[in-house]
Amino acid sequence: MIPDSHRAFLIELAERSGDFIRPYFANHELTVEIKSDDSPVTIADRGAEQLMRDLIAKKFPSHGIIGEEFGDDRPDAEWTWVLDPIDGTKSFMSAVPLFGTLIALMHRGQPVLGAIHQPILRQLMIGDGLATTLNGRAVRVRPTARLEDATLLTSDPLNPARHQDGARYAGLEKRVRLSRTWGDCYGYLLLAGGWADLMLDPIMNPWDIQALIPVVRGAGGVITDWHGGDPVKGSSIVAANPILHPQVIAALAG
Amino acid sequence: MIPDSHRAFLIELAERSGDFIRPYFANHELTVEIKSDDSPVTIADRGAEQLMRDLIAKKFPSHGIIGEEFGDDRPDAEWTWVLDPIDGTKSFMSAVPLFGTLIALMHRGQPVLGAIHQPILRQLMIGDGLATTLNGRAVRVRPTARLEDATLLTSDPLNPARHQDGARYAGLEKRVRLSRTWGDCYGYLLLAGGWADLMLDPIMNPWDIQALIPVVRGAGGVITDWHGGDPVKGSSIVAANPILHPQVIAALAG
Repeated sequence: MIPDSHRAFLIELAERSGDFIRPYFANHELTVEIKSDDSPVTIADRGAEQLMRDLIAKKFPSHGIIGEEFGDDRPDAEWTWVLDPIDGTKSFMSAVPLFGTLIALMHRGQPVLGAIHQPILRQLMIGDGLATTLNGRAVRVRPTARLEDATLLTSDPLNPARHQDGARYAGLEKRVRLSRTWGDCYGYLLLAGGWADLMLDPIMNPWDIQALIPVVRGAGGVITDWHGGDPVKGSSIVAANPILHPQVIAALAG
Repeated sequence: MIPDSHRAFLIELAERSGDFIRPYFANHELTVEIKSDDSPVTIADRGAEQLMRDLIAKKFPSHGIIGEEFGDDRPDAEWTWVLDPIDGTKSFMSAVPLFGTLIALMHRGQPVLGAIHQPILRQLMIGDGLATTLNGRAVRVRPTARLEDATLLTSDPLNPARHQDGARYAGLEKRVRLSRTWGDCYGYLLLAGGWADLMLDPIMNPWDIQALIPVVRGAGGVITDWHGGDPVKGSSIVAANPILHPQVIAALAG
């Protein structure tokens, strides 16, 4: 159903944007601007998105594009690319390689292919909802069955209290074995790769979410919004293996 | 005062241990054991320390050795090496490159040379209390002057409440611009490299602390225990630039 040419092009987008981003990492010359929503942006974010938009316009001129930095361009096209050039700009500008480039391909409004690319570690994870690979090798969520044995990740330690029920999140954090802010898209890569068990983000943007859905599902994981609903139109994420996911939703609902 | 042969040997220890550790990173074959103190250990920790101990015994048979995994060997020698082969084993076993190898050289009980080595990112930071370099280039703490503009790091989000006054730490966390668990020794590398402002660890072991002292001081930073005292014999750390450090100590003391 997904043409091979589209899969190959996704890899090209990841590799080309990664080559652009890499020299700006841990570079003290990098200038950081603050956007109107109070989030930071750099030339690496803008340049990587512009580069991907140009490649898409040349290769697939009829496709739509939704990007974090430069907005929507025919977002209702049959095939639409959703781009977040640097998901985790705060990590990126802090010389922490827990950011990534998110690329999703939507077909009639549903994400059918997604990539998480960490260009410093040269890790490219691709999922289509049925299978997920990391640098070409199949990956799978791990079968942790109890919250007490789980590694819990989130992006910002203060966001659960700002955007959801902070007390319930704090209760969950006390139950798990390990809790860390190894966050943004790298947390989903760790989950889908079998290195972590729970990745929760209480606040998400549309361009953050779409790529994660086929990646997590392809690795055998469950991904919903904070209340267990469809994540495609949501603004929060709870991702876990199928055993833990209902336990987390129950814990967050109290 | 520190012989050049000792400096060169420090680099050799870092490079050789890094070569040993690297293949075990993000490797699902890695077996994790739990030690009597409930902390994890792997063949990468043990093998890297044994390798460094063997190199030291051959090169400087009169020197002492203190290591996390294999204990003390003449710890009161004039020159003693303090080794933590993998500081941040929980990160290491979770495929997160925020761990590192800590190597300190003590002279008559004082740390005079320290290294933080991140073998996956190939970052080697070395300090002698007067200067600190990252891969050979001088680094410096950044001059952030207000807590409201600071990036605050710690290793485990639950440790402040377990080992110190958790409410005061939570108050500090609410004041800063960014709070993350980019922890263990990588947090000190970020501080000394000018990418973060505050690194706090409410609980530390002797083999965790020594290497950090000459690294942080060489970059112009201040490093003390939780209450502002000498860190060499302490069991906690507060590290920051000289402007912010007294502000943090005051905030933690309420």
